[in-house]
Amino acid sequence: MEAKLKRLKEILAKVKDLQYAQAVLGWDQQTYMPAGGAADRAEQLATLAELSHSLFTSQEVGALLEDIAPLANDLESDHEDACLLRVTRRQFMKATRLSDEWVAEHARVTAVAQSVWEKARELNDFELFRPHLERIIELKRQYSSFFLPYDHVYDPLLDDFEPGLKTSEVQAIFDTLRREQVDLIQAIAARPQVDSSFLHKKFPEQEQWDFGVEVITRLGYDWKRGRQDRSAHPFTSSLGFSDVRITTRFHKNYLPMALFGTIHECGHALYDQGLAASLARTPLADGASMAVHESQSRMWENLVGRSREFWVFFYPRLQEIFPAQLGNVDLDTFYCGINRVEPSLIRVEADEATYNLHIMLRLELEIALMEGSLEVRHLPEAWNDRMEAYLGLVPASDAQGVLQDIHWSFGGLGYFPTYALGNLIASQLWEQIQSDVPDLDEHIRRGEFAPLLGWLRENIHQHGAKYEPQILVQKATGSKIDPQPYLRYLRKKFSEIYAL
Amino acid sequence: MEAKLKRLKEILAKVKDLQYAQAVLGWDQQTYMPAGGAADRAEQLATLAELSHSLFTSQEVGALLEDIAPLANDLESDHEDACLLRVTRRQFMKATRLSDEWVAEHARVTAVAQSVWEKARELNDFELFRPHLERIIELKRQYSSFFLPYDHVYDPLLDDFEPGLKTSEVQAIFDTLRREQVDLIQAIAARPQVDSSFLHKKFPEQEQWDFGVEVITRLGYDWKRGRQDRSAHPFTSSLGFSDVRITTRFHKNYLPMALFGTIHECGHALYDQGLAASLARTPLADGASMAVHESQSRMWENLVGRSREFWVFFYPRLQEIFPAQLGNVDLDTFYCGINRVEPSLIRVEADEATYNLHIMLRLELEIALMEGSLEVRHLPEAWNDRMEAYLGLVPASDAQGVLQDIHWSFGGLGYFPTYALGNLIASQLWEQIQSDVPDLDEHIRRGEFAPLLGWLRENIHQHGAKYEPQILVQKATGSKIDPQPYLRYLRKKFSEIYAL
Repeated sequence: MEAKLKRLKEILAKVKDLQYAQAVLGWDQQTYMPAGGAADRAEQLATLAELSHSLFTSQEVGALLEDIAPLANDLESDHEDACLLRVTRRQFMKATRLSDEWVAEHARVTAVAQSVWEKARELNDFELFRPHLERIIELKRQYSSFFLPYDHVYDPLLDDFEPGLKTSEVQAIFDTLRREQVDLIQAIAARPQVDSSFLHKKFPEQEQWDFGVEVITRLGYDWKRGRQDRSAHPFTSSLGFSDVRITTRFHKNYLPMALFGTIHECGHALYDQGLAASLARTPLADGASMAVHESQSRMWENLVGRSREFWVFFYPRLQEIFPAQLGNVDLDTFYCGINRVEPSLIRVEADEATYNLHIMLRLELEIALMEGSLEVRHLPEAWNDRMEAYLGLVPASDAQGVLQDIHWSFGGLGYFPTYALGNLIASQLWEQIQSDVPDLDEHIRRGEFAPLLGWLRENIHQHGAKYEPQILVQKATGSKIDPQPYLRYLRKKFSEIYAL
Repeated sequence: MEAKLKRLKEILAKVKDLQYAQAVLGWDQQTYMPAGGAADRAEQLATLAELSHSLFTSQEVGALLEDIAPLANDLESDHEDACLLRVTRRQFMKATRLSDEWVAEHARVTAVAQSVWEKARELNDFELFRPHLERIIELKRQYSSFFLPYDHVYDPLLDDFEPGLKTSEVQAIFDTLRREQVDLIQAIAARPQVDSSFLHKKFPEQEQWDFGVEVITRLGYDWKRGRQDRSAHPFTSSLGFSDVRITTRFHKNYLPMALFGTIHECGHALYDQGLAASLARTPLADGASMAVHESQSRMWENLVGRSREFWVFFYPRLQEIFPAQLGNVDLDTFYCGINRVEPSLIRVEADEATYNLHIMLRLELEIALMEGSLEVRHLPEAWNDRMEAYLGLVPASDAQGVLQDIHWSFGGLGYFPTYALGNLIASQLWEQIQSDVPDLDEHIRRGEFAPLLGWLRENIHQHGAKYEPQILVQKATGSKIDPQPYLRYLRKKFSEIYAL
């Protein structure tokens, strides 16, 4: 039994190596690769994906998992090997249940759909994209059918990003959230707007880069086990267990883009840099879920990086670097400016208070499409109706509405809710940290982040993918994912800023 | 038959993808990887090497090669598929004849030997390294025995770098070369030395970088299919068929290091960027041999980059960039300075006229060790005796002598001669180009390199690894590798510079 477990771990280590190799190729593709390399790189990535898939789904792995199953029953459920077997069995089941035809067809359809979507957005022509999206929805329903029986047709999609989480749970959470968040935004909209014009001055790139580095170094980013580069879209990627890199991008006339983007990616990276060493080269060397990962990036970006305490420490330094731009802007004005709330059409530009409504709208539409209660041809109207109800805005064009995100075109249904859940989990953890870590606010005002990072390392990071997200959140906070802490956080913060 | 060839090509394409993936990981390791990534990266590279080896040496590939063999006989020997089958059979034979035990033992022994060698060089203690080198020689003899029958025990080693080339051929070439080159160097040593002090001034790195980029852009380096970065040791690497990158390094107080290093790597890269598109993702997408590759880098570095014609065009520009350092140095003085000949102890610092003697010495010692006519314990004396005979110098320490190169510690016997052969092939091709391309010198004086690159593309680059080096050189020049053009080149150039 022990020998079989050892053999399984050897194979899993090689699968992990191949995944890291893909990460290296992907990182290079987005940072330094010359244009000519694109076609070759696609072939290389396809070959690596194929080999890693066939290595993981081999008969040998299947037989080993079956043979070792009794061992898992003997172990405590928290034992690392028990977790490893649980997660591996789950991934093996998911990887082997799909038909080869479905995998090939999905790859073909989404490859075409992505380029059609690009064109459709450019031409503001939803009809162009419609048949492709219809085919994708069909394929996604077929996908779910591989995992019958399920409680809800959307469950198998959600499960790819949030292991174990049910559609009904997410719906219950969002039902609570929806009305309260809409009310809050309407209350804010009725108040005078805060000033943020000073954020739109000229901020030279090198100084932005240097300040970002200074900030994340203090937050705890380990440069010996990572690095930062530029890319068109910021991302965090593990190129090895001890090689967790981030990227950022700059806007010369808008300070927040690079600054909060860098802190956001640092939040992801701190998670991956904090995994227990014993998880290296196993499937557990990963985050618990997309939402838990997002909770880390959002916590550092928003609960830390957009807090008054944070800027008590960093603002004098920022003013020193940009005296002409910020010398005459006081801390309170700056703090309100970086927290300005303004309903807008585009998700990726949304502020902290409106962001989740963009997500809810998408989730509701995805569920309706999967259930069949909404047809793709009625999607633009459904989108616009909800935008008006939630944010009081109607897009002037589909390009600014239903066509704005790439996700559906690559078949990423089930992905959106993780963004919003990440916000909720961040606030929920934050209340717990406030109660566990004495003087947390004072630490932050002094630029001391070790107590916060220590709590996260202990309660979240070290566990990697050992637990499903609901179980991990329960272990860390005593309850499952709960929207109330997030609502309390929003109400408190914005009541103050907008004098509600 | 056609279907089997197609299937073989599919597998070979995947093998190539895995090799490119290794190149990406290796490039990253030497350019941007954080220190923490080292251990993970070694595992990733080992996994990729293992998978690519087992994919290439699979029973399926063996059976396909056997089944397709008759096809190869029907094709003209120049036909791309005939070349592909020839090269693939050869590589397959080489990869499958070794015992697994030998491969494992060689990996183990050389891994240890490399770190011992480092220590031994540091402590100037050959005895520390001796037993490891003895074991490596034993392993190399065993290696040759896998390829019995052979004409000479050194042949199988040489063949790894120079397909088809025999030890006897190399010895005949070097026998001619040795005496004449020693005589030439003695004649130079008797003449007054040329000035090169102006090369040792302060040259800011950014200006060096910019000038290097300007030069290789004009030589024809394709930036859409490549890029340049910094690394501790300069190298060229293909990360994909259309992604051929180079690296360089700088010495702030010595102009030639980055300048000629950059041109040298550009020479390698022009070769790889010039392969025929039809060779992509096959084993033919490679140089013909190490020596042929080195002929390209050396040609651009020395025959072009250290020629008077080249500097007629580029020197005014260089003076413009470094007016304080070179404003008062005229073209002739500069030209003589960059071609200064001075016997020295260290191979990697050797000039164009003495370099080959460093190589000959190593080759003779390697052959004697493999034949058993020289024992490892007598190696230091043998080294020093030859240094005195060839270059008139005796190292003060083994660290500056027999311990200076890393090659033996990683088992790279057979590698050194390729450096010298590259110089010979470069001169041999050059005489042919001079006769085929009208006004070549005038083109270079005008900074026009397209006629030269065009000849190389046509006669060398496009063929990739289709032909063995002797056959390729014969096709391009009408004769096999011949030391006379090189000797004529050296005599003419240095007679002028040193007024012999």
